[in-house]
Amino acid sequence: MILHGYYRSSATYRVRIALALKGMEAVQTYHHLGRGEHRSPDYLALNPQGRVPALETDTGEVLTQSLAIIEWLEETCPSPALLPGDGVQRAHIRAFSQVIACDIQPLQNTGPLNRLRTLGADEAAVTEWIRAAMRDGFSACEALIARTGGVFCFGDTPTLADVCLVPQLYNARRHSLDLTPFARLVAADAACARLDAFRSAAPEAQPDAE
Amino acid sequence: MILHGYYRSSATYRVRIALALKGMEAVQTYHHLGRGEHRSPDYLALNPQGRVPALETDTGEVLTQSLAIIEWLEETCPSPALLPGDGVQRAHIRAFSQVIACDIQPLQNTGPLNRLRTLGADEAAVTEWIRAAMRDGFSACEALIARTGGVFCFGDTPTLADVCLVPQLYNARRHSLDLTPFARLVAADAACARLDAFRSAAPEAQPDAE
Repeated sequence: MILHGYYRSSATYRVRIALALKGMEAVQTYHHLGRGEHRSPDYLALNPQGRVPALETDTGEVLTQSLAIIEWLEETCPSPALLPGDGVQRAHIRAFSQVIACDIQPLQNTGPLNRLRTLGADEAAVTEWIRAAMRDGFSACEALIARTGGVFCFGDTPTLADVCLVPQLYNARRHSLDLTPFARLVAADAACARLDAFRSAAPEAQPDAE
Repeated sequence: MILHGYYRSSATYRVRIALALKGMEAVQTYHHLGRGEHRSPDYLALNPQGRVPALETDTGEVLTQSLAIIEWLEETCPSPALLPGDGVQRAHIRAFSQVIACDIQPLQNTGPLNRLRTLGADEAAVTEWIRAAMRDGFSACEALIARTGGVFCFGDTPTLADVCLVPQLYNARRHSLDLTPFARLVAADAACARLDAFRSAAPEAQPDAE
């Protein structure tokens, strides 16, 4: 398999963690977003949306959208499970993940941020825009795991929720967000940081890191 | 079951369609977003994120995030399948759905739009912001179904892709987006409009429609 990504793309970071947790191998190919390499004709032929990540499977299929890729990994290699438990537990894990993937992360993508700047927003306003989305979303995530036990978001093994949380907290720290109100999230993140799968997937561990 | 929603919320609209396609019954409860009813103490006790939809199951669980709810419906009532086919097909259907749920819809939520206005954007700029997200996302969706057959997005039965597409095209028309470049999407939408499940779930068919 070939994973097309960028070291600091949080959606790519999610897929790297999922692959590592499942012990699946993928050749990593990097496309520098700042230099527009995701808009090259070759990459657009592969993924017309021009976004990372994209996963080329061994049968030549090109899969896109990080959560769709991870659901495919889960179906292809069910163990260790990233969506463990019963249906209700899986619904809560997916809801937590979607707060991050739908309600936080899209608002801090390059496209919307550049559009904000063309509307006249200065860098302080852009940073506050990013932080506001994270504060709202993290509050929802913190509430969603208020009654779960274990060291990770949903018990004693990492799930899709942790796979989404860790890259988002990485971004939160880049933007100096005060994480004091999110003690459960910070604790789960610390538990993840003790696992090789999360450490090997970190942006600074990638060959294209700057 | 009880579905908490609002007639014009596109995420609630998705869940209404999925319930109707599967022939599942839910009592519908409406929360007027314009009047802030989703921020009432009673509703926040149910869903701390203060968003619609939320689904109360017969066992008293509260499920949130539309795609997580629909995956739960799919697991609970597998037929008719909204994620049919093999793993790769399911990955493509989920990717299409996530382009809408992650890359388009969050950018047109009330929160970000109000923040745009506080940054000084006038209504023309807000509308152009909404349209830009739809143009980008619909282009990706149109490409994702370029090689599928059938009258719906992915074959001859409606899938999660159609469940997400129809509410987004409803929003596109509200914002007078030119749909000419998206012939495949418009054709799938027209096929859906011939089904009772889609018609009964439409915003104007809801008792809280204004």
